[in-house]
Amino acid sequence: MSDAQASEIEKPKVVTSRYALRVVVQSVHSEGKTIGLVPTMGALHEGHLSLVRESVRECDFTIVTIFVNPIQFGPSEDLSRYPRTLDMDLELLAEHHVDLVFAPPRQEIYPEGFSTYVTPPSVAEPLEGKRRPGHYRGVATIVLKLFNLVPAHIAYFGQKDYQQALVIRKMVCDLDLPIRLEVCPTVREPDGLAMSSRNRYLTDAQRRQATALSQSLNQAAEMVAAGESDSARILQAMRETLESAGISRIDYIALTDPETLEDTAKVVPETMALVAAYVGDVRLIDNRRIG
Amino acid sequence: MSDAQASEIEKPKVVTSRYALRVVVQSVHSEGKTIGLVPTMGALHEGHLSLVRESVRECDFTIVTIFVNPIQFGPSEDLSRYPRTLDMDLELLAEHHVDLVFAPPRQEIYPEGFSTYVTPPSVAEPLEGKRRPGHYRGVATIVLKLFNLVPAHIAYFGQKDYQQALVIRKMVCDLDLPIRLEVCPTVREPDGLAMSSRNRYLTDAQRRQATALSQSLNQAAEMVAAGESDSARILQAMRETLESAGISRIDYIALTDPETLEDTAKVVPETMALVAAYVGDVRLIDNRRIG
Repeated sequence: MSDAQASEIEKPKVVTSRYALRVVVQSVHSEGKTIGLVPTMGALHEGHLSLVRESVRECDFTIVTIFVNPIQFGPSEDLSRYPRTLDMDLELLAEHHVDLVFAPPRQEIYPEGFSTYVTPPSVAEPLEGKRRPGHYRGVATIVLKLFNLVPAHIAYFGQKDYQQALVIRKMVCDLDLPIRLEVCPTVREPDGLAMSSRNRYLTDAQRRQATALSQSLNQAAEMVAAGESDSARILQAMRETLESAGISRIDYIALTDPETLEDTAKVVPETMALVAAYVGDVRLIDNRRIG
Repeated sequence: MSDAQASEIEKPKVVTSRYALRVVVQSVHSEGKTIGLVPTMGALHEGHLSLVRESVRECDFTIVTIFVNPIQFGPSEDLSRYPRTLDMDLELLAEHHVDLVFAPPRQEIYPEGFSTYVTPPSVAEPLEGKRRPGHYRGVATIVLKLFNLVPAHIAYFGQKDYQQALVIRKMVCDLDLPIRLEVCPTVREPDGLAMSSRNRYLTDAQRRQATALSQSLNQAAEMVAAGESDSARILQAMRETLESAGISRIDYIALTDPETLEDTAKVVPETMALVAAYVGDVRLIDNRRIG
């Protein structure tokens, strides 16, 4: 942890170039400090901050990256309107005693002629991978680049993006990346809605509707607790919950193996439930273990 | 350099598991030594050994990897008959004071379920990329893995595989890999034939034919030196040289920009000539600057 902790809260050092980042990282390494990395797209909320707290607790030096990664957005997705709240983000990170923020411009990460990508592992194919072609290619590529730019000891991701965490974990394994991953629990609003930067898009009415996602997951867990194990019946009940809240544009509801994300016909203790649906034109995702 | 240098020549330490490799590498790193990496597929010749000598000269600790990378071979290529000469390789590496050899079995590098790949940069597309679909995907993936397994300061490659060096250099740049590359000159037999593990396949008669590749490159350089700059005329002369040596199965002859590998109509000082052709059923490649 930096001197920022000892003095009054001040904004963390922000670097925008890879060169400046390397200079700091090399100096931190040479002091033998452990580095924690929290990659974000900014628009920080309690979910991100829980990762930051974990990194600050476990590592000597915490680096948060803020970069809205264009290559993980599809052509019809919300890249241009994705919330950018850098000043507020920096205040929050200062309060959490983050040591360094890397907030590069797009050209620093994808200069003219950039053309090398990571083809993500097969677990990237179902669910989000099917609905968002190219999304995990973009995620895997930026995460690999960040891991190379910030040779951290531990990188922190949220369980909220469950499939993303699986994709990154498998990439780390397949490509022999020398980094440890920690996947931290989803942080929820009091009414159960999973924290997401995209929640800011919701109107008050949509915000109320949106609780149906976590409700449908809880309902699935309750059905399992009450003895139900037939996936089809659980999926049907989840769909009715979403629809009765007025959510009709459902991308997927799935009960799957927790590692392969293959659909499971019978719920077992490890089974995951995952849901993606539009509330108005805002696409939200959520998941939980239901076994 | 290891103790091997001080004592009688003894075979270098060989490790076959990623775990054993990491243990050694971490200890070398903690001593503050610089590490040189020479990735090979074995069947070592003077070309490889020139890379090894350069690494031993420049770095404190030299690691040579020997791994015939299956994913860079096409289904109709020579994976199964590719020469394996491990004992002789180890003797040569001992004579050159290599500190560590990493010679993993296939399963150690590509365990069951492996499914993450590098999509190589666009410079991988022409020439070899067109004739050997998937080749550079395999090369980029294994090289990235080796760079992660052996966090070396410098990695050594041969100019003989000119496009490969460009692909790796661009990958290193695009993915922000913290490693320096050195591309060393092609080593040739006295009659000009570029050293290659595949030269072992050649019969005596084919071996004599094979010199036509480097002859055609030299001829191009001589034409340029004599004032010729029209690519079409140079290419025609090169083709005739190959064909009059009995080489009729020509994959490509190209005069290109040295960075993009795009064909050039007029030769300039940086222009590269590249050739790929079959001598019998042995596919050989060669290149040189002709401007």
